[in-house]
Amino acid sequence: MTNILADDGRRRVVIESVSPAVDGGRFPIKRVVGDRVIVEADVFADGHDALRCMLRYHQQGARSWEETEMALINNDRWRGAFEVAELGRYEYTVAAWVDGFLSWRHDFVKREDPADIVLALQVGAMLVEAAASRAKGAEARALRGFVKELSADSAVEERRRLAAGDELLGLMMRYPDRSFSASYPLELEVVVDRPLARCSAWYEMFPRSCAGEAGRHGTFADCEKRLDYVAQMGFDILYLPPVHPIGRVKRKGRNNALEPGPNDPGSPWAIGAKEGGHKAVHPALGSLADFRKLVAAAQARGLEVALDLAFQCAPDHPYVDAHSEWFRRRPDGSIQFAENPPKKYQDIYPFHFESEHWAALWEELKSVFAFWVEQGVTIFRVDNPHTKPFSFWEWLIADMKREHPELIFLSEAFTRPRIMHRLAKLGFTQSYTYFPWRNTKGDLTEYFTELSQSRSREYFRPNHWPNTPDILTAFLQSGGRPAFMARVVLAATLGANYGIYGPAFEHCENLPREPGSEEYLNSEKYEVRHWDLARADSLAPLITRLNRARHENPALQQDWNLIFVPTDNHELVCYGKFNDERSNIIVVAVSLDPHHTRSAFVELPLEEFGIDAGRPYQVEDLLNGESYLWQGPRNYVELDPRVCPAHVFRVRQQLRSEKDFEYFA
Amino acid sequence: MTNILADDGRRRVVIESVSPAVDGGRFPIKRVVGDRVIVEADVFADGHDALRCMLRYHQQGARSWEETEMALINNDRWRGAFEVAELGRYEYTVAAWVDGFLSWRHDFVKREDPADIVLALQVGAMLVEAAASRAKGAEARALRGFVKELSADSAVEERRRLAAGDELLGLMMRYPDRSFSASYPLELEVVVDRPLARCSAWYEMFPRSCAGEAGRHGTFADCEKRLDYVAQMGFDILYLPPVHPIGRVKRKGRNNALEPGPNDPGSPWAIGAKEGGHKAVHPALGSLADFRKLVAAAQARGLEVALDLAFQCAPDHPYVDAHSEWFRRRPDGSIQFAENPPKKYQDIYPFHFESEHWAALWEELKSVFAFWVEQGVTIFRVDNPHTKPFSFWEWLIADMKREHPELIFLSEAFTRPRIMHRLAKLGFTQSYTYFPWRNTKGDLTEYFTELSQSRSREYFRPNHWPNTPDILTAFLQSGGRPAFMARVVLAATLGANYGIYGPAFEHCENLPREPGSEEYLNSEKYEVRHWDLARADSLAPLITRLNRARHENPALQQDWNLIFVPTDNHELVCYGKFNDERSNIIVVAVSLDPHHTRSAFVELPLEEFGIDAGRPYQVEDLLNGESYLWQGPRNYVELDPRVCPAHVFRVRQQLRSEKDFEYFA
Repeated sequence: MTNILADDGRRRVVIESVSPAVDGGRFPIKRVVGDRVIVEADVFADGHDALRCMLRYHQQGARSWEETEMALINNDRWRGAFEVAELGRYEYTVAAWVDGFLSWRHDFVKREDPADIVLALQVGAMLVEAAASRAKGAEARALRGFVKELSADSAVEERRRLAAGDELLGLMMRYPDRSFSASYPLELEVVVDRPLARCSAWYEMFPRSCAGEAGRHGTFADCEKRLDYVAQMGFDILYLPPVHPIGRVKRKGRNNALEPGPNDPGSPWAIGAKEGGHKAVHPALGSLADFRKLVAAAQARGLEVALDLAFQCAPDHPYVDAHSEWFRRRPDGSIQFAENPPKKYQDIYPFHFESEHWAALWEELKSVFAFWVEQGVTIFRVDNPHTKPFSFWEWLIADMKREHPELIFLSEAFTRPRIMHRLAKLGFTQSYTYFPWRNTKGDLTEYFTELSQSRSREYFRPNHWPNTPDILTAFLQSGGRPAFMARVVLAATLGANYGIYGPAFEHCENLPREPGSEEYLNSEKYEVRHWDLARADSLAPLITRLNRARHENPALQQDWNLIFVPTDNHELVCYGKFNDERSNIIVVAVSLDPHHTRSAFVELPLEEFGIDAGRPYQVEDLLNGESYLWQGPRNYVELDPRVCPAHVFRVRQQLRSEKDFEYFA
Repeated sequence: MTNILADDGRRRVVIESVSPAVDGGRFPIKRVVGDRVIVEADVFADGHDALRCMLRYHQQGARSWEETEMALINNDRWRGAFEVAELGRYEYTVAAWVDGFLSWRHDFVKREDPADIVLALQVGAMLVEAAASRAKGAEARALRGFVKELSADSAVEERRRLAAGDELLGLMMRYPDRSFSASYPLELEVVVDRPLARCSAWYEMFPRSCAGEAGRHGTFADCEKRLDYVAQMGFDILYLPPVHPIGRVKRKGRNNALEPGPNDPGSPWAIGAKEGGHKAVHPALGSLADFRKLVAAAQARGLEVALDLAFQCAPDHPYVDAHSEWFRRRPDGSIQFAENPPKKYQDIYPFHFESEHWAALWEELKSVFAFWVEQGVTIFRVDNPHTKPFSFWEWLIADMKREHPELIFLSEAFTRPRIMHRLAKLGFTQSYTYFPWRNTKGDLTEYFTELSQSRSREYFRPNHWPNTPDILTAFLQSGGRPAFMARVVLAATLGANYGIYGPAFEHCENLPREPGSEEYLNSEKYEVRHWDLARADSLAPLITRLNRARHENPALQQDWNLIFVPTDNHELVCYGKFNDERSNIIVVAVSLDPHHTRSAFVELPLEEFGIDAGRPYQVEDLLNGESYLWQGPRNYVELDPRVCPAHVFRVRQQLRSEKDFEYFA
């Protein structure tokens, strides 16, 4: 404990439990540009004096603080808010004091004894005099005017009216005595990202499978031709697996075979060969200039290119010779490959983060990010960040975002909850989730309630993927096309951030390499594939409508406004989302049964939605354009998986009736 | 954020969310001598390496730390425990590291490839060699022996057995490589009190009403004669309202009359007169020597005397002349009395804690405590602490307890929750509660669940009072004797700390000064009363049995082990308490209806109690000695308020049956 007597014992206000705060201020909260940060605190003092409480905030590095008044909610809890208008970091804290004038006034207006009132007027005049000495110019003169009037010989009633009046109050609020103001000991941080950090639709695609004709290795130029397809579906981000040269030593063949065929291209995650490492592009994809051209062409269509950075090396990565000190050596002099005994992954050399040369390794890896930022990339999907030290990521992300606050880092950590959360806390902008394995109504409700309502939402921005090149879930395998439809509707409407791995997804590719596996048969990870984008059964039209709904409805652009809606069928999940003003309300109903038609009554929380239960309202399905008239909370929904297992309703109550006619009544 | 590169990037372990901790370590938790402090933490690292985790602790001020190993529970949560054996303050924190040997061993035992095993044995030998250099004497020699054997040319299988064996493991656990050990940044504190801080029964009594005959002002000597009465009821603490000289200026008369009669003794809380102030005793009670004699006589009976310290002054308190700088002055030169406009309390001068001379005031007030400690008092009930600055109390209590860790401070703050909690956090040993106003089953269940299960239990030790000289609740007023019985059973069994204001309580005194008031008619606060302790309807026998049950049953000596038991009657509340070993189980059933017989089926959580639902068990009512045989969770209870509205059952399953006979089977 600090020496209390060393401080001024007259600081009587206590400030506790300032929220939001992550781990007692150890980590920043996350917001996007334009957000209002709502801050609360427990603020109180001994006795019954009146308090004032200020929310203080500024951009990190600014010398002075902005202030905005906090208001008492109840139970000694105070609330204020400020806007984060710029990218980067802000800080906020709370200050409060026992306000002499407000305390005086609070008693003054209740006084009845004329002698007391006269004495209290004298005390009041002294307080106003003191405020005048803190004020300047016209306001100081106005305050001195009040001192004179309060001290005058005029009628007590008139002086009392002036002393208790709003004009004096307003002036005194501007010049409080803050001598014994107390400050919350922590300055809490906010990382402010681009709005895209909060709402984004990702499309993952292997560049080498983008050739117009079968049998050819795709190039960046082929990817450019694919851009319209992706942009027209309404995605925001085109995410490419690693584009670097692929190792030849211990290369894996198709379907992860130990012995590759002569033309097998290898896994893009086995990074590095004689052509270069993490700062090079695979020659078969084109040149760095081609890559930059692709990035620019994407931008022209409103698409951003996200790159996958995977910090591991193929045995023939140039680092292995040039920096063998960054790898662990076995007693026989060989370099330690990745392993999980008895399994061996001899095509992959992990970096040795306990090397004596860790600092140089950190700098080099950071320079990889810097290199790709120079090529125009601002969004990174980071492969397996949980197998590198946490402090490395905290340092790297903070350092990169200092100069480039626009950067977005997606954490691909499918691991234990504490670890995923730590990565989010320390700086990752978005995080993959357990969504692929949440397929029942109970699981979805519990998981999304946690994600959208618990304190972790301050730092953990979920990004939901129904599939990835590594994850073809049993639900998709067994449920086929209706399952794909249901899962993409859930991902795109439960979450403001979502992504799919295509065209495998649009084409409902659902064969596993072997029963019980989540690996794709003939996975693009190990071979070049050719996709017929014109297939009649493609989900591209559905996805296009989904992404349009997301772009047109603010309710779908955030995570925190989610409410689950009770239904009387356990295979039918229903939920609502709305914007703060309740001017945009979306209700989604999804059948989790890909095999049978399911129906249910849903119980909409109309009060929460701001909808008058006594008047009809319209729900329009944004997936097929059909409209229904509903009234009251309880309504019927029926979903045939062969048609579409989901409704995405926009709810509107601005229906006209006879009362809207000019001559009515 | 600190400069991460300045630290060693090889510290890969993360330690988060260490519990218990109050406000991120700002305040200590509370325990009593002999407690085991159970500490948990989230501890994890990147990757899959094995960790070790240590709970570190010591008495505050000690240079070195004790350590005890923490074990993984699940979900990256680790747990350890240490005992607090001495009064005073302890500190604890957590350290953890990626353990090279454990990680190596984890992989080693799963290896199958003979060539890998040979290489791994070499790595293992290097790790053991390094440990040998950290060890000394016989253990260093033993480790070197292992190095030789692991590196020998002998059969791999034999070397493998040795490398994976328990003997080597045990040695290696003793000499880990902690070079990259991480430490939790906070050292958390525990205040360790006497066991009496956790479990105590208080009896409040006005010394001036203790005279043997009516019409005489009682003395300390009379109090001595009353000690047997109090001790025989089984109380631990005899608490006396202020014993100082009482002011004559503006003295209040009987029933708080503005004009006192000539013989009215005044309120003991109007402290100070020409005979002295907070360090003097009222002459009518006796001398300081008499007071010390009372304290000693009480101790001889196992009773401790608690004193009420109320920091406020009557207008004729010696401080008012000697230290007028400690009071606020009105513009007319008079001293500001207490007020809550339009109400005035002209008999009371509050101290002015915003005085420039606050530091001297603080020192003087602390010297008041020190004075009474010198007279043998170690327990203080502090009057209205919430009207003095929080930092004053934090400083005073910490300072007093540094030399006298045996001191107990009870906070009499009936105010808003945040304020009561802050006083508990900053150092008050026990706190009055909202118990007087929690009279329904729902309210009792909610409040006691919060008190016993929420995080606030780490610092807030409740002390429950069915009545006080200021609080005669509507429930007691209207419910009469059965209400008093129910309330004292609730207080004494729901809470490990409780107290009553007697003899008003034993005598079921329930007349208010006026309808709607919680003030007693003819309150002892303003007059001397005479009590006939031999009254046949006294609750003393019930209270005696209650306190005996408390002393004999560890289950009733703590707050955290409370479980509410469902009943099918909303006027009948039932709950269980048990000790950690489940060797002592108490089940209490109380009817909240003072007017009618009530019955209910109760559903005991037998599994929680460790009771075999398939065998009968005995419940013995400790209030009347009757026993019942029960079986299974569902049992019938009937309570007639005219007899007793409560059962306090001790539950026992050690019933003998034919199977216990030696020749059975």
